[in-house]
Amino acid sequence: MRSIMAATTTKPHPGTNRKFVLAARPVGMPKESDFELVSEPLPPLAQGQLLLRTQYLSVDPYMRGRMTGVRTYADPVNIGEIMVGGTVGEVIESRNPDFTAGQIVTGYWGWQEFAVSDGSGLRHLDTKLAPVSTALGVLGMPGMTAYFGLLEICQPSAGEMVVVSGAAGAVGSLVGQIAKIKGCEVVGVTGSDEKVAWLTGELGFDAAFNYKTTSDYVARFQELCPNGVDCYFDNVGGAVSDAVLSVINTKARIAVCGQISQYNLDKPEPGPRAFRYLLNKSARAEGFLVYNFVERFPEGMGQMAKWIKEGKIKYRETIVEGFENAPRALIGVLAGENTGKMIVKLC
Amino acid sequence: MRSIMAATTTKPHPGTNRKFVLAARPVGMPKESDFELVSEPLPPLAQGQLLLRTQYLSVDPYMRGRMTGVRTYADPVNIGEIMVGGTVGEVIESRNPDFTAGQIVTGYWGWQEFAVSDGSGLRHLDTKLAPVSTALGVLGMPGMTAYFGLLEICQPSAGEMVVVSGAAGAVGSLVGQIAKIKGCEVVGVTGSDEKVAWLTGELGFDAAFNYKTTSDYVARFQELCPNGVDCYFDNVGGAVSDAVLSVINTKARIAVCGQISQYNLDKPEPGPRAFRYLLNKSARAEGFLVYNFVERFPEGMGQMAKWIKEGKIKYRETIVEGFENAPRALIGVLAGENTGKMIVKLC
Repeated sequence: MRSIMAATTTKPHPGTNRKFVLAARPVGMPKESDFELVSEPLPPLAQGQLLLRTQYLSVDPYMRGRMTGVRTYADPVNIGEIMVGGTVGEVIESRNPDFTAGQIVTGYWGWQEFAVSDGSGLRHLDTKLAPVSTALGVLGMPGMTAYFGLLEICQPSAGEMVVVSGAAGAVGSLVGQIAKIKGCEVVGVTGSDEKVAWLTGELGFDAAFNYKTTSDYVARFQELCPNGVDCYFDNVGGAVSDAVLSVINTKARIAVCGQISQYNLDKPEPGPRAFRYLLNKSARAEGFLVYNFVERFPEGMGQMAKWIKEGKIKYRETIVEGFENAPRALIGVLAGENTGKMIVKLC
Repeated sequence: MRSIMAATTTKPHPGTNRKFVLAARPVGMPKESDFELVSEPLPPLAQGQLLLRTQYLSVDPYMRGRMTGVRTYADPVNIGEIMVGGTVGEVIESRNPDFTAGQIVTGYWGWQEFAVSDGSGLRHLDTKLAPVSTALGVLGMPGMTAYFGLLEICQPSAGEMVVVSGAAGAVGSLVGQIAKIKGCEVVGVTGSDEKVAWLTGELGFDAAFNYKTTSDYVARFQELCPNGVDCYFDNVGGAVSDAVLSVINTKARIAVCGQISQYNLDKPEPGPRAFRYLLNKSARAEGFLVYNFVERFPEGMGQMAKWIKEGKIKYRETIVEGFENAPRALIGVLAGENTGKMIVKLC
């Protein structure tokens, strides 16, 4: 049995909440008008509940899939429903014995300034360990995606060639660094010369190229990976992935993490069929969800935190200020405007 | 140390050999003029050699790949070189202590009436165990392809839905039966109503359809696999595989064994890109070669022989008579004219 503690109220109850709901299913790239900012009264807390004030919202490419009215690996967000997403915030009032006002927690309460919670799905953050925003990035879902996707799906060995697409994103930038820690050669594909310079100059990638200024991807891979590609961590799909398929080695492993180049298409874009390449090379392509590895998150987070402390993993955040700018931030992620993790900071 | 035995000559040395060499690289479907039948003198045997007279030649879809001047998983056959392929034949003369005249062996000596061998790569066949032609089918490469491809790549569990394309071929017809032994539901895709009847009537497939008379593959799969597809054993690729991708279940496993619909194309045909489907379903597609499992062939052959004896596995051979008809037989395999294993029997 739980002991019931008296509620501790430290700040005046805000009374009103604001949240973004899905206003329309986007056609192609989402527009700001596909979201609607609505206000609603915040109810008083019942026993067992707590009130959260959002500090950081995560915006991630997978959210585009949820805006489409099709079930993929998760249910879609329906019109009028709050946009989903990872969050970090402060407990500002608690009638739940496991939480006290002033604590910082992370969870998945979506695009809203405040949230009433029963505490389920919340995780306490140690503010002395790392900036709390990292719970949405390197020490959160993107970090775990990079860690388990690379190590469990690609299973790279020292000396192997690893290619990462979306290499300067929240996940890709970590994948390349983990592969370097494991002794691999790493080539990144990204969307600007500044990102190329960051990957090779700061993060230790052996090479990277800007796909927007490269006309022949196959030739570029042949130049940068003269002995072929053993592991491919794919965040983007499309023509970049088509090119990688033509340079994979025997027994290559492809982790299909994202297909951001395809998310705004109404229907799958035709390309050269992949199976022929997999057949010729006894190669494997596997889609995965980070939540397949949820039971091993403590291991993954512990290792990532250790690598950060040792200076082996660096991370960058692109922070957009102001709750009102959340839609604009998500559109920015889908357009590749971020370097590292894109986060919305509430004022 | 080996003991050296005196050579035993039982039949007059034939003097002349005939073989098929590659005359031209095919454009599209191979033509008979892409092969040339040439005669050459048979040299006398050196110590350690034996002379083989071919009884059966295997013709298999993979041979189309070898006729293309591109290295895939194996080196191509060059112009003027003998066509490769599995064979069964009789030892008619031996100067090798491990072989005596009259023995029947299987090997990979290619499209020729006779072969001089040093014995390497040959395997003795027990003529009392099964018809020796089965060494090219159910108890040979196609049988091992079905056995290891299904059990190791697809890893089906009882109650799961297994789809097989090229279902009436040498490999596909065995895949479906093994899946039934393992307690799966099995749907086959094949190219004639007669083959559909054979699969469902004799081999125990739960359902099958003729892709040539079906316009909407997705609708047909939705009808036959209302709970989705867990395992797909793909021999054909192309539009059939595109359709299967749209009905796979979470954690589906796809064994890419062949892509016969694509072999006669100059370049990969565009289709909906596969990675998006793999991503949405945390699914895996993996190409494989039967030779990856060569160390486990004794296990596989023992199990297949046991199932045949128990009546759990049935097989059919389509036999073309006459060495001269080997090119025509291979063209027939590529056109789907065979039911079960296509074999050339030398007169």
